[in-house]
Amino acid sequence: MRVAILGATGAVGQTFIRLLAGHPWFRVAEVAASERSAGKRYADATRWIEGDLPADVAGLTVTTCDPRAVSSPIVFSALDSEVAGEVEGTFAAAGRLVLSNAKNYRMEPDVPLVIPEVNAAHLALLDTQRARRGWAGGIVTNANCAATMAAMALAPLHEAFGARRVFLATMQAVSGAGYPGVPSLDILGNVIPYIGDEEPKLEREMQKMLGRLNEGAVVPASFAVSAHANRVAVENGHTVCLSVEFDRAPSLEEAAQVLRGWRGASAVRGLPSAPDRPLHFFESDDRPQPRRDALRGRGMTVSVGRLRVDPLFHLKFVAMGHNTIRGAAGGSILNAELLVATGRAGVA
Amino acid sequence: MRVAILGATGAVGQTFIRLLAGHPWFRVAEVAASERSAGKRYADATRWIEGDLPADVAGLTVTTCDPRAVSSPIVFSALDSEVAGEVEGTFAAAGRLVLSNAKNYRMEPDVPLVIPEVNAAHLALLDTQRARRGWAGGIVTNANCAATMAAMALAPLHEAFGARRVFLATMQAVSGAGYPGVPSLDILGNVIPYIGDEEPKLEREMQKMLGRLNEGAVVPASFAVSAHANRVAVENGHTVCLSVEFDRAPSLEEAAQVLRGWRGASAVRGLPSAPDRPLHFFESDDRPQPRRDALRGRGMTVSVGRLRVDPLFHLKFVAMGHNTIRGAAGGSILNAELLVATGRAGVA
Amino acid sequence: MRVAILGATGAVGQTFIRLLAGHPWFRVAEVAASERSAGKRYADATRWIEGDLPADVAGLTVTTCDPRAVSSPIVFSALDSEVAGEVEGTFAAAGRLVLSNAKNYRMEPDVPLVIPEVNAAHLALLDTQRARRGWAGGIVTNANCAATMAAMALAPLHEAFGARRVFLATMQAVSGAGYPGVPSLDILGNVIPYIGDEEPKLEREMQKMLGRLNEGAVVPASFAVSAHANRVAVENGHTVCLSVEFDRAPSLEEAAQVLRGWRGASAVRGLPSAPDRPLHFFESDDRPQPRRDALRGRGMTVSVGRLRVDPLFHLKFVAMGHNTIRGAAGGSILNAELLVATGRAGVA
Amino acid sequence: MRVAILGATGAVGQTFIRLLAGHPWFRVAEVAASERSAGKRYADATRWIEGDLPADVAGLTVTTCDPRAVSSPIVFSALDSEVAGEVEGTFAAAGRLVLSNAKNYRMEPDVPLVIPEVNAAHLALLDTQRARRGWAGGIVTNANCAATMAAMALAPLHEAFGARRVFLATMQAVSGAGYPGVPSLDILGNVIPYIGDEEPKLEREMQKMLGRLNEGAVVPASFAVSAHANRVAVENGHTVCLSVEFDRAPSLEEAAQVLRGWRGASAVRGLPSAPDRPLHFFESDDRPQPRRDALRGRGMTVSVGRLRVDPLFHLKFVAMGHNTIRGAAGGSILNAELLVATGRAGVA
Repeated sequence: MRVAILGATGAVGQTFIRLLAGHPWFRVAEVAASERSAGKRYADATRWIEGDLPADVAGLTVTTCDPRAVSSPIVFSALDSEVAGEVEGTFAAAGRLVLSNAKNYRMEPDVPLVIPEVNAAHLALLDTQRARRGWAGGIVTNANCAATMAAMALAPLHEAFGARRVFLATMQAVSGAGYPGVPSLDILGNVIPYIGDEEPKLEREMQKMLGRLNEGAVVPASFAVSAHANRVAVENGHTVCLSVEFDRAPSLEEAAQVLRGWRGASAVRGLPSAPDRPLHFFESDDRPQPRRDALRGRGMTVSVGRLRVDPLFHLKFVAMGHNTIRGAAGGSILNAELLVATGRAGVA
Repeated sequence: MRVAILGATGAVGQTFIRLLAGHPWFRVAEVAASERSAGKRYADATRWIEGDLPADVAGLTVTTCDPRAVSSPIVFSALDSEVAGEVEGTFAAAGRLVLSNAKNYRMEPDVPLVIPEVNAAHLALLDTQRARRGWAGGIVTNANCAATMAAMALAPLHEAFGARRVFLATMQAVSGAGYPGVPSLDILGNVIPYIGDEEPKLEREMQKMLGRLNEGAVVPASFAVSAHANRVAVENGHTVCLSVEFDRAPSLEEAAQVLRGWRGASAVRGLPSAPDRPLHFFESDDRPQPRRDALRGRGMTVSVGRLRVDPLFHLKFVAMGHNTIRGAAGGSILNAELLVATGRAGVA
Repeated sequence: MRVAILGATGAVGQTFIRLLAGHPWFRVAEVAASERSAGKRYADATRWIEGDLPADVAGLTVTTCDPRAVSSPIVFSALDSEVAGEVEGTFAAAGRLVLSNAKNYRMEPDVPLVIPEVNAAHLALLDTQRARRGWAGGIVTNANCAATMAAMALAPLHEAFGARRVFLATMQAVSGAGYPGVPSLDILGNVIPYIGDEEPKLEREMQKMLGRLNEGAVVPASFAVSAHANRVAVENGHTVCLSVEFDRAPSLEEAAQVLRGWRGASAVRGLPSAPDRPLHFFESDDRPQPRRDALRGRGMTVSVGRLRVDPLFHLKFVAMGHNTIRGAAGGSILNAELLVATGRAGVA
Repeated sequence: MRVAILGATGAVGQTFIRLLAGHPWFRVAEVAASERSAGKRYADATRWIEGDLPADVAGLTVTTCDPRAVSSPIVFSALDSEVAGEVEGTFAAAGRLVLSNAKNYRMEPDVPLVIPEVNAAHLALLDTQRARRGWAGGIVTNANCAATMAAMALAPLHEAFGARRVFLATMQAVSGAGYPGVPSLDILGNVIPYIGDEEPKLEREMQKMLGRLNEGAVVPASFAVSAHANRVAVENGHTVCLSVEFDRAPSLEEAAQVLRGWRGASAVRGLPSAPDRPLHFFESDDRPQPRRDALRGRGMTVSVGRLRVDPLFHLKFVAMGHNTIRGAAGGSILNAELLVATGRAGVA
């Protein structure tokens, strides 16, 4: 199945290309970027950051981000939010299924914001979206990278015990800011206790993802969230410390069992990008750690550890996952696989 | 005034020596360490880590940590907790004033745990201590390094609005673990979401320091604390994210005014190690940062910033300070200066 | 084929276990370590540093480093040089083939110091060794990790043009110092321009590896080497800058062709741990880089780049490779594979 | 004495302002930058990177880089090389003394390239320059930051023993690339073995600085240089490994004595920015190190260590200094002080 990458020359675009190399279903047939890159060989239009540029993609000619220039039915969007809004809408209107990493459509009531194992059911919003907007295609988004780690770790506990209040503090990797992104003078031997617009995103996206679908709309989860977002000198892997109050207080052992046993939506199992287990639960007290655990499950497993009693709420624990794989391109690809597998891709 | 350093060859001991170089009141006259180092020239007994070893200390002969071998009336203890308990007690019994960085005596009801600007009044516990233990000297402790940053930032707000519940997540520098301390393979490109025994210390020490003195005893502050302690790839400077609920909810501007205006106990102003201001309040949204702000006030000022409304409690903000200066040796020296200035040193 | 690991609980021992997981020929059947660990389950005797401990090794009981307690015919030694000398000799005398990472035997005239692609022929020294020492088994060593990178990059050029003088400056990863190894306070934001005993090792080991076998002995290469060894804040991957004078000055293009075309000893190709190409030659001017290139060829390929004219000698260039894989455990395993494949393992 | 800063809003411009705060002779009276910043308050036109912006500079209005808008007789230029050529020439023609950090004029035969302690005599080129160009003012440049460290360490040895061939490998701090400069994804856990145009600059600037003045022109030193330039994860401090061949081979002790005793040009001693000693010589084998030694002499002292015999040439050793202080702004300020003190400032 032919797929296109929008914003193919940036850091997220490159991650899509890297993760799709050798994919059993999808083949990167088209790469689109800004006017400045259009017409060039992909290898000449980009400064490849990590690993080797796949040979079959290197030779593609970059097109503009215009549905008339791009024919693939499935389109992965790595566009910046400045342009994603308009471009992604144009592609959806033109009958393409757009898997987006940008924030623009995430909070639209008729746009699914999906982590497959957590809220696959929200994909039904695509029907609402097509009906309401008259789009032949559609847009499916994945969440902010830090919200993804927090939501995946919280999902089984919320399902079992009902989260009511969530305090979270993040320590986020520099790759989350793209390339060139964070200047080295800002982060070597340092912590930046601020990431623009990150805290509100964390708070509202978690509520939407853990919300319930009701009559074609998502009712956000009613828990309240307070987030502290920090940037640290880590290449890959966002770490999140959580303290959670529940409707029904679980014992440590109950909570551990829920985390250990959780597999997420059954429709996801066995998909090409699905990890053996969406969560890995650590018993040892000094894990998870980004450098040691971010690549677990080829970057698609979120690791959870340090489960303990919280003196103010009920439980505290730490979640960590790979921000550019599970938290961005890999999440989009898994969304696309699920749509294809469930016949929702809307593409022949 | 002659002073001695116990545990002089370790990282904290070296910091004492560095900070006391050129001190207007105190002169390092004696250096004590383990049997293994005793009898050696100090310069030969230690592996000096940072800056230049002051020439007058380099030539001192290391003694054992025995009050019969050490005559200085004021003794700064950089001892590990394995030996601090017994040694510090022996020195106090022998009439010396011991300023301790170890955890052993911090939670003893008759031992002051003091940040001078915050709870100088607690030094009155020395009377209780001397009466109860029959010591001619006494022990004064300073807090865990991360607890110090959190307590200093919280102190004026607690005084004004009454803290009720406190969430905190720390990102602590590697120098807090001493030398050799954290292996580089554990921290390069990494976060360790665990520091042994740190969270309980943070929780109980803040309550004691912000408690009230009542009839010769400290009534701990009644707020509850939940702490997440993390180690990050920073050399110096502990960063703490706080969310706080108060008895009376302040507006942002009320809270900012309190933080901006706070000077702490007046007896401390003008002491040789006292900074111009104990707190520095940042209006800009990406500060404080350890590499840029830890040395503010020669390492004795705690920086506070990112004050904003907390969706769960009332306020959130970030505090940061130099862990081996304000959070350890510098704090002890300021305690000693205050004791001398207020005639409490008990030494002629 | 059953193999044993000596010094199995340390950092190099763990790397052996990680690299041998799923090996098509070798199975880790025995793990040996110091008296202190002996008798424990391996999982309990070690603090596993990176990735997951293979389940079949986790349950092995640790034995002492004594040939009476270890029956495997092939023995990988990750022992420290303090004990490697005696222990490895005992195993060789007891008929085992010992693949050693320690420095003790490297410069012995009858002990092969081998990088398979470079000087496989030196393995013939085993005959001399057995004859001279009366050992039923034998010892084969691999080189210092930085010497390995330099020797592999230099080998084809030396063969083609005859190296005469070699300058090299290394920037070595912290994993080369083992675990706990380099304290983080020594290396964060820092360079240490010194690694104990490294420069002489670099100089003499390169001469031996690039020497010729003559009548059962190695005649060291006659080039002179001057080395500057530095430690930098890199987790994995040693980078080496080289300036080389040759007997016959090659043009840049001649040299590039030699580096691009080199495959090394044909007997090595197709061995399980052999990379597709022992050298990867970069045309782009800012490579190789340790974080981006160390894992090339699953850590067994050495990357070379920045080939340019040297104003003093003839050529300068940069070589970089994975120090704990190609430069240590992976190199030993490839040596063992070559010995087995060529019938030199001397074990039925 | 009033001074102006050209390019005041960038990283080097900020360093000038920081170093000139409280200067006994010079007062920053004017700040100039691009059209975009002109007219703004300085505090609003810049993103201040390190420490506190001095209050008296914060309120200055930024002007354009035009001598009609700037009246100070002494002008420190922190301009990028894209614009430095034209702008600096205009200021010199307009009668100002320009102290430049840019590369544009460094290799002009009539422009002094000066490290005051090393080649103060070259300032006599100003006469040639004024005569030849008809400028009322003039331009004095300081060297590339890494060339400065290497030249200062080599200067006394060259003077005593005559350098003939110099091999050098640098490990350079990220602050050398300005701000935002090196992306964190490029340098965390990494080495970049390439800095654009750095190696040729190192080679030719060292020859000029260590050259002799002869009849109004500099005869470059005749030694040959081969440089390997690398970027490492260090904030401040360039480290340089050198191997040197001399006309007359010194013993280690002779060389050490020369390095220990060197004070440089006597006219420099006592100037406000001159360090007590231009070189600090380390006997211990693991120094100098950037994080521990870059701020020696308030960043103006270059540290030298690891002096040992070179197997190919005569000596090897390591030099390290603060790249944005001694290697940039601090060097310019010391040049200006020397010009004023020797009556060469040409300004009343």
